[in-house]
Amino acid sequence: MKIALIGAGNVAWHMGKALQHAGHEVVAVYSPTEAHRQELARLLPPAIPVASPDLSATEAELILIAVPDAVLAAVAGAVQVPAGAIVAHTSGSQPLSVLQQIPGARTGVFYPLQTFSRSKPVHFQTVPLLLESEDEHTLHTLQAVAATISREVHLVNSNKRKQLHLAAVFACNFTNHLLGISREILQQAELPPTLLQPLIQETIAKAAQQPPFQVQTGPAVRHDQNVIEEHLHMLQGHPLYRQVYQLLTNSIQQQHPKQNNNSAE
Amino acid sequence: MKIALIGAGNVAWHMGKALQHAGHEVVAVYSPTEAHRQELARLLPPAIPVASPDLSATEAELILIAVPDAVLAAVAGAVQVPAGAIVAHTSGSQPLSVLQQIPGARTGVFYPLQTFSRSKPVHFQTVPLLLESEDEHTLHTLQAVAATISREVHLVNSNKRKQLHLAAVFACNFTNHLLGISREILQQAELPPTLLQPLIQETIAKAAQQPPFQVQTGPAVRHDQNVIEEHLHMLQGHPLYRQVYQLLTNSIQQQHPKQNNNSAE
Repeated sequence: MKIALIGAGNVAWHMGKALQHAGHEVVAVYSPTEAHRQELARLLPPAIPVASPDLSATEAELILIAVPDAVLAAVAGAVQVPAGAIVAHTSGSQPLSVLQQIPGARTGVFYPLQTFSRSKPVHFQTVPLLLESEDEHTLHTLQAVAATISREVHLVNSNKRKQLHLAAVFACNFTNHLLGISREILQQAELPPTLLQPLIQETIAKAAQQPPFQVQTGPAVRHDQNVIEEHLHMLQGHPLYRQVYQLLTNSIQQQHPKQNNNSAE
Repeated sequence: MKIALIGAGNVAWHMGKALQHAGHEVVAVYSPTEAHRQELARLLPPAIPVASPDLSATEAELILIAVPDAVLAAVAGAVQVPAGAIVAHTSGSQPLSVLQQIPGARTGVFYPLQTFSRSKPVHFQTVPLLLESEDEHTLHTLQAVAATISREVHLVNSNKRKQLHLAAVFACNFTNHLLGISREILQQAELPPTLLQPLIQETIAKAAQQPPFQVQTGPAVRHDQNVIEEHLHMLQGHPLYRQVYQLLTNSIQQQHPKQNNNSAE
């Protein structure tokens, strides 16, 4: 399939590579930043970098819009595509309807549920791809393309995708931030960050097997006020982390009324 | 080595099994709850359940105190041990000095840095064991015992262990709670909890390879105020989760001044 990419960030980059690897042809890359579109087009021959979101003169059959959520509506308003081409965006938080203003296009959503960094390769076959379209033919085409790069293809409507995106913010974005705070505490104590890895792995493995609320451990769920007070005292030099500690402790305790519990941490 | 366990919770249970498996002999189990000490003693023959923390008549050479942090000092005040025996506690948050009141004992810390649930087997060889003692001979004995059940034996003093414990609360206890919130959101949207697993795995893998603050993704680090507002709106039925969302977003944004960033979620 002939594909054009709008956007040259991490999502466009990883998805473009996966699509090309699966035998699709990336024909054009648009980004407002000249260096970005040139760099990505170079990586995906025979793609050519284009300086305008008017792709109507290209041979693209599928246009993927992979731009920051905040500018998606504006970009969609400027895009022009060949008649009958499919336009799909890759956003977890934006509805399908954000594309309705594109003239003559069949529209859909092609959302990869994964976090991408330029520097880290992604095994795309295991990345869930969440698809949506109001047009059955479009949906079938998106499903066929998705199946060439991932084993995990799901149909999810805009409303559910929004909920999923919110769940992902808690499970991944916020979790990553807590891991960052944890690492900072280890560094200040001159302890190696690897020391906590087995515990982190086990926490994630356990939460995948059983509902996390049922396997909660730690001072908060034990209502161990002495330890909690000491931790808050240790954090007094960092008011924001202290607030995070206090609030998450409250949230855990609200869900877990006081009871006996015996655990390692 | 002849070992006695004080406490019959998850830590005593898993550690007792690992020690027995390594060839040590568990001679006694004390817990104030009759059913608990009987159940654990049955699992660890030839261990006998004892109804008092006076173990001075047993043959125990090493007494491990694995009780909730909140009662450790009280338990240590009541324990009696054979002359010359080593007494070690398994707490991450409590100092070595909490054991100093035990008459005639050599004291230490034998802290397994892992989260234990009764229902989930633990591969003890990869569990970091953090040891401490002020007496060199005691420390050598603890090291020898630790090496029989784990490949990860570290010497860490009380102050550093306290920091490590605090870091573990952020990285594991709080992370688990966020995974629980995430799962609740998925359930309400009637989406399978497995859908987020690849993203969670990748988040953890990435945070192990690079400092988490450097690979932060999501609406907060992108300062994507529209998405953040919508998420807060979606959470309005759950004030505490809404507060957690707001505070973690603030904490991320304090560390990441506004900049361009293009990512999947």
